[in-house]
Amino acid sequence: MTAGTPRRRGRPSRTEAAAGPATRDRILEAAREEFSERGYDKTSVRGIAKAAGVDPALVHHYFGKKEDVFGAAIEQSFAPAFGVPDAIAAGGPEKAGENMARYLFGVWENPVTRLPLLAVLRSAFSNETAAATLRALIEKRLLARVAGDLQVPDPEFRAQLAAGHLIGIAVLRYVVKMEPIASADVEDVVAMVAPALERYLTSPEAGAQP
Amino acid sequence: MTAGTPRRRGRPSRTEAAAGPATRDRILEAAREEFSERGYDKTSVRGIAKAAGVDPALVHHYFGKKEDVFGAAIEQSFAPAFGVPDAIAAGGPEKAGENMARYLFGVWENPVTRLPLLAVLRSAFSNETAAATLRALIEKRLLARVAGDLQVPDPEFRAQLAAGHLIGIAVLRYVVKMEPIASADVEDVVAMVAPALERYLTSPEAGAQP
Repeated sequence: MTAGTPRRRGRPSRTEAAAGPATRDRILEAAREEFSERGYDKTSVRGIAKAAGVDPALVHHYFGKKEDVFGAAIEQSFAPAFGVPDAIAAGGPEKAGENMARYLFGVWENPVTRLPLLAVLRSAFSNETAAATLRALIEKRLLARVAGDLQVPDPEFRAQLAAGHLIGIAVLRYVVKMEPIASADVEDVVAMVAPALERYLTSPEAGAQP
Repeated sequence: MTAGTPRRRGRPSRTEAAAGPATRDRILEAAREEFSERGYDKTSVRGIAKAAGVDPALVHHYFGKKEDVFGAAIEQSFAPAFGVPDAIAAGGPEKAGENMARYLFGVWENPVTRLPLLAVLRSAFSNETAAATLRALIEKRLLARVAGDLQVPDPEFRAQLAAGHLIGIAVLRYVVKMEPIASADVEDVVAMVAPALERYLTSPEAGAQP
């Protein structure tokens, strides 16, 4: 991407470039922290570079434009959730809903994996570019794979209905913190939502009464 | 609330106080716009007063502290959604899920009622006080009434599962704008989610397979 090519003046020094993967990781970590603390709008490539202790040109060199840095940062934030398709496949169709719910609530329950997700959702709510980047990532890395395994009509729509259900429960439980759903035992929530997910993922009659 | 009593110096003049309801409405409208455009954190009582063309003391006089102004603003933003309990009651138990979904998607589909909801959700994502205010409002004005009409165990939990489902679909459809769910016919979405809502709202066996 030409926009990501560093200008002559800001080209990384031989020492910096030699640092390679470690520098790239340090920039990515700084980007995650900046986006997480400030949100998409108030984060700048310059600020990320400063936090990582590198020249802004090096951020461009590794990641391109701000939206590409954001994409790389949220890809890492969402990585724990990408195990969903395997978790569903492992249990077979009759456990698809239960396994999808249990796996994703596992990701949400752990503060280490929950906080980056909340930060990404916050950015997506406040900025269209961030929302578009998030959309592309979820579609490509998560829902396309889930939909690809479904034996139902409109598999993408079904996968999105199931994902939407879990996102909404997560909003009430972890963001709005509404009781009793915020303190309910995870397994009770899984037991309640699993049949709804199951229907979306495996029941061929669209809109049929349960 | 004593915190809302204006100090002597900032007491509204007789002319301002005489304006009464019209002034209060103007302040509330300014508050909705400020919170909507800037989010909770960056909105100030001073800024709201300036936008409404009144003294900040008058904002305190009518609404109290910033969080109380926010509460009044989001109460108005959410007012269109408060018809849900009546919409559910009107159709009887066998249509509860369908009527809840159709009513709420009606509110979301209309930009006039959708944009304030999105603004409120954005504030709740970025600020704990805003999240708490939103939580109290949804519980008191919406879910307590829905739960009060349910003939199932754990009615609050059930009402929150149903609301969470619809919130998550709304996030994918109106915020993240993921296809195909973003462009799907509303009635197709209603037909797909209604059975899941129906089960939460009326089926007594918790976690039973559909």
